[in-house]
Amino acid sequence: MPDYSIGVDMGGTNLRIAAIGKDGQLLEKITTDVKLAMGRDYVIGEMCDAIRRLTEKYRASGRFLGAGIGVPGIIDVEAGIMRKSANLPGWTDYPVRDVIERSLGSRIFLDNDANMAALGEKWLGAGRDADNLAMLTLGTGIGGCIILNGKVFYGMSGMAGEFGHVTVEPNGVPCGCGNRGCAERYASATGIVRMAREAIGSGEAPELAKAANSDPEFSARSIYDLAMHGDAPAQRIFQRFGEVLGMLLADLVNVLDLEMFVIGGGVVSAWDAFAPRMFAELRERSLVYAASAPEDPMAKKEGASAAIANYTRKKTIITQALLGSDAGLYGAARIPASQ
Amino acid sequence: MPDYSIGVDMGGTNLRIAAIGKDGQLLEKITTDVKLAMGRDYVIGEMCDAIRRLTEKYRASGRFLGAGIGVPGIIDVEAGIMRKSANLPGWTDYPVRDVIERSLGSRIFLDNDANMAALGEKWLGAGRDADNLAMLTLGTGIGGCIILNGKVFYGMSGMAGEFGHVTVEPNGVPCGCGNRGCAERYASATGIVRMAREAIGSGEAPELAKAANSDPEFSARSIYDLAMHGDAPAQRIFQRFGEVLGMLLADLVNVLDLEMFVIGGGVVSAWDAFAPRMFAELRERSLVYAASAPEDPMAKKEGASAAIANYTRKKTIITQALLGSDAGLYGAARIPASQ
Repeated sequence: MPDYSIGVDMGGTNLRIAAIGKDGQLLEKITTDVKLAMGRDYVIGEMCDAIRRLTEKYRASGRFLGAGIGVPGIIDVEAGIMRKSANLPGWTDYPVRDVIERSLGSRIFLDNDANMAALGEKWLGAGRDADNLAMLTLGTGIGGCIILNGKVFYGMSGMAGEFGHVTVEPNGVPCGCGNRGCAERYASATGIVRMAREAIGSGEAPELAKAANSDPEFSARSIYDLAMHGDAPAQRIFQRFGEVLGMLLADLVNVLDLEMFVIGGGVVSAWDAFAPRMFAELRERSLVYAASAPEDPMAKKEGASAAIANYTRKKTIITQALLGSDAGLYGAARIPASQ
Repeated sequence: MPDYSIGVDMGGTNLRIAAIGKDGQLLEKITTDVKLAMGRDYVIGEMCDAIRRLTEKYRASGRFLGAGIGVPGIIDVEAGIMRKSANLPGWTDYPVRDVIERSLGSRIFLDNDANMAALGEKWLGAGRDADNLAMLTLGTGIGGCIILNGKVFYGMSGMAGEFGHVTVEPNGVPCGCGNRGCAERYASATGIVRMAREAIGSGEAPELAKAANSDPEFSARSIYDLAMHGDAPAQRIFQRFGEVLGMLLADLVNVLDLEMFVIGGGVVSAWDAFAPRMFAELRERSLVYAASAPEDPMAKKEGASAAIANYTRKKTIITQALLGSDAGLYGAARIPASQ
């Protein structure tokens, strides 16, 4: 029977909790609603109850190593404090870790959901064989995380990996961060819907307009379906998405030269609609990528590019995440398991 | 008498060699021409002779710890091989380190000039008190180096820190790397001259045109002088320079969240002409910078920005390099001194 830890992934709507063995076996997974309207203390109480139920159930199976909790927002990881979260307005500056630690009497680790997802992919997913990688989680925005030597690279203020706010269009769409033309205004689920509404507004996307009017849940998914059925305006949106993601990845390869970039988040299921353009852009905009790109007959292997390729023989790998929405759960469980 | 090491900075025109004490005292500095036309072996022979003269002279003063050699180009640092250099065409794939090591019988370290300059600034210059910093050397292009925990971060292929090829203008000026709108096509000495010739071509920069016609050495320096004398087209070039550098820095702060960014290279002497615009752009385009910016009455400290500022109380420092063209010499001498 393995020692085990608990991983928690707290979103704006779902709370997911899993007991996971030290070697990565999923023992049990619970999913419940987050009753945000009941207030912070109620939600944390429910989380603690669920963790307690699991640790009591698996008490006999092995040693309980602690729990990792992934939350959306800006986290002071050292202090265990939630600084700010768009989804959890009443939690500002709340010492989430210490409160839960006192309630449960066990070791608790708090970090943001993007870092947890990256740790999960590093442990059991696409990043298993890479020590240095970055993960981009494409959702409402772009969650980012850099892992160096197997550990999260936080930067000075814990803010490293804000890939979503890299400028891809100097005079582009305004962003809530104060910048214009941030990558996440294009290469995210929200970006896809925004671009679709823009196309509808221009009057040149009748099928998109029809779908938006008839479908109360008009989403990136609906736009993808139209693109797959040959609708040119919908296809152009995924082309633009791929172009921006390729530009962003090129910047990241040029700056970081990491072994691997893992792309996760729900929109990754639209890979076939955006990836060809993404790779084309990446090759054109990053000499380092072009030099090291795997199986790429189009890469210009001349001059500096050939010089890099000659001696590295290493490949920059750009790949889809493998664990889907469970990545954050595994990553959260990994922290206590690896201490 | 201190133990000492030798730092070598080999450029396309000058070869500079210094004996430097283990604690950073400059014992002696030699500058000679590089006689590239005489061929690779001749140049390396001259370098070895000069190193030998210095080590013989200081033999009595302390233990000789080895030599570091900074060269322009793509270096395989582990193997000690020069892979490619635009300035040294006959040196491709040449095992520079081993050849010199055999000739001198002492430990030799080879790295590129941008990394050496960053190590120098880290040791004795602007970066003395920072463990995590990046240096941007603005010259022909933009040399870049990331230092983490006091050591150069090389990335997978030794290509980390290619800041000059971050895209700042998606459909901008073509670059030799295959990309368009690379930062170094604007924010470098070459970029300044390029933008001046563009302005002259448009017929709207009579003073610049006059200077270009009368001055055979028309350079970033001449354009700076015009800007300082109030010439609007020359001023606009430095505004654009500052804008692009600010955009690049914003991307780097968003991705890396380092303590310090050191700006070096000859063009830094034009700081007053480009820095105000650079800082304005940086504040607008990086929430992390705006939150942590020192003494900045303009910074929007609301929402996420305030959340970051509240708990970090750390400042992102953007500053000029302090060691000028000696940075590379000191950095090169630092490697053997710190082994």
